[in-house]
Amino acid sequence: MDARFDILGIGNAMVDVVAQVDEDFLAGHGMAKGTMTLIDAAAAERIYAGMPAGQESSGGSAANTCAVAAALGAKVAYFGCVADDQLGQVFRHDITASGVHFPTPALAGGAPTARCLIAVTPDAQRTMNTYLGACVAFGEAQVDEAIVAASRVTYLEGYLFDPPAAQAAFRRAASVAQGAGRHVALSLSDPFCVGRHRDAFRELVRTGVDILFANEAEIGSLYGVERAEDAVALVRGETRLAVLTMSERGSLVVSGDEVLRIPAASAEVVDTTGAGDAYAAGFLAAWTGGKPLAACGALGAAAAAEAIARVGARPPAVVLETLV
Amino acid sequence: MDARFDILGIGNAMVDVVAQVDEDFLAGHGMAKGTMTLIDAAAAERIYAGMPAGQESSGGSAANTCAVAAALGAKVAYFGCVADDQLGQVFRHDITASGVHFPTPALAGGAPTARCLIAVTPDAQRTMNTYLGACVAFGEAQVDEAIVAASRVTYLEGYLFDPPAAQAAFRRAASVAQGAGRHVALSLSDPFCVGRHRDAFRELVRTGVDILFANEAEIGSLYGVERAEDAVALVRGETRLAVLTMSERGSLVVSGDEVLRIPAASAEVVDTTGAGDAYAAGFLAAWTGGKPLAACGALGAAAAAEAIARVGARPPAVVLETLV
Repeated sequence: MDARFDILGIGNAMVDVVAQVDEDFLAGHGMAKGTMTLIDAAAAERIYAGMPAGQESSGGSAANTCAVAAALGAKVAYFGCVADDQLGQVFRHDITASGVHFPTPALAGGAPTARCLIAVTPDAQRTMNTYLGACVAFGEAQVDEAIVAASRVTYLEGYLFDPPAAQAAFRRAASVAQGAGRHVALSLSDPFCVGRHRDAFRELVRTGVDILFANEAEIGSLYGVERAEDAVALVRGETRLAVLTMSERGSLVVSGDEVLRIPAASAEVVDTTGAGDAYAAGFLAAWTGGKPLAACGALGAAAAAEAIARVGARPPAVVLETLV
Repeated sequence: MDARFDILGIGNAMVDVVAQVDEDFLAGHGMAKGTMTLIDAAAAERIYAGMPAGQESSGGSAANTCAVAAALGAKVAYFGCVADDQLGQVFRHDITASGVHFPTPALAGGAPTARCLIAVTPDAQRTMNTYLGACVAFGEAQVDEAIVAASRVTYLEGYLFDPPAAQAAFRRAASVAQGAGRHVALSLSDPFCVGRHRDAFRELVRTGVDILFANEAEIGSLYGVERAEDAVALVRGETRLAVLTMSERGSLVVSGDEVLRIPAASAEVVDTTGAGDAYAAGFLAAWTGGKPLAACGALGAAAAAEAIARVGARPPAVVLETLV
């Protein structure tokens, strides 16, 4: 069936504030390196006040995936909720400038646009503190079902399990996509997010997900295993495809009895923010273009390498265009 | 006389929006490469709509100088006008986090925080379009004379000649500084800005400036000469020190009959935004610390090299700290 969009991303729409910190900063704020913590407005103000000068850029896990996939040539749409404020305008500008269709109207009079405070340590790891702001207003009303039905893959970020109304929107979108004979992809997003909603994630993976993306910590949190290899047998019967990323050890693509091992693309590691998002973008851009799984994994790895080679989650389009 | 601050910067407070563009973008918008153009709110919206996704970071010429000088160990204050909005909060956070005292209150209910749309071409040149927003409200009322009198050098950016009330504030600050036995420094900022206010600049340089910073295009616009070397004789009698930067040809420090030639520090050129600002920061941080002129020029050149080696105008403090 012909599709208007290759990929529809649904996620928490936010602006990243990225700053370089030392290890003491994480210790002083009790932050667990490499993870995402939800914070309220007061904590956001307190943590921001303690952060060095930073750079702002559009973020949000699924939004990053959408922007990168569009730069790789996919036709992409995105649903997510920003406020009618300056950071919301920045988010809208950037995702639209990347060629992504973004129909969700801005929220007026409510909480401000979400922001993610990202502390990058000298080892290039990013530790994130997220104030959800306007994202909590995202619900079923923002799911344009005609667009879901017209998209080859509806890609859901696991972080959407956190804001209360989003989980319903999430399930609604998955059900519409399935009903239209489309595919549903899910990224687990974060081990602690999985821990907060483990049963709901397990059920969704079993019943509504065709393509699962997870890194080693996330799949470990879902199934109680240590290494991606140990999760292969567990995930095999649950989803059509499971894509398990393992940082510099590459990734595994599990498809029924077949397991493909994809090497990581080499990169000088500057900032790991957005590596997983970019991998999913490359994989899905190739997959919706009908490429074989090895090529999907290779494009994912190549896009991830570009993401970690620079500050920020979205490599410039001029760089990404050279990968396809 | 003891001083509370080494450097007080006064300038247009703004947030930069930096995006990589191709040469056609400049041609299509009729932009003159490497210069700064003032635009109104409507033009800002139109140009922004046509720009690729970007990165936001605090900017403003004198503010950049202040942030870099503080990272180099100088005691620094800054006056400039932002609005009570999200970008204004970003500006305040960043300059404060850099260790700069920033007493100017935010403007409520007026124009939004100024922004500078910066198009970076593949040759690493930056072309700037500035919407002045809240900066037009900056006037004599924002000049805290006690701070001026307590600062070794009051550093004025030439861009301040553009917003109407700022020129009066500018002259007031210069006069207070002179009356307190302090020094006044001026950066010419931009050849077109000099062209718009040539007579006023010439008079200020002659009567109220101790240290003049200019690049080759700017000093050329002031005196109608082509090369920095040709300006030496003209500027020699006008100011105590003239510092003429010449990109990869290094810089000239003119002090009475003496002319020092400072080589450029080597750097891979990524984005020239803020190179002049960083040079002034390094020079003034060393000069207010009592260093000889050759060391002042060398620190200026080293700071400028760090600024052009990365996107954005303010190299991280951890990098700058290694220079002193």
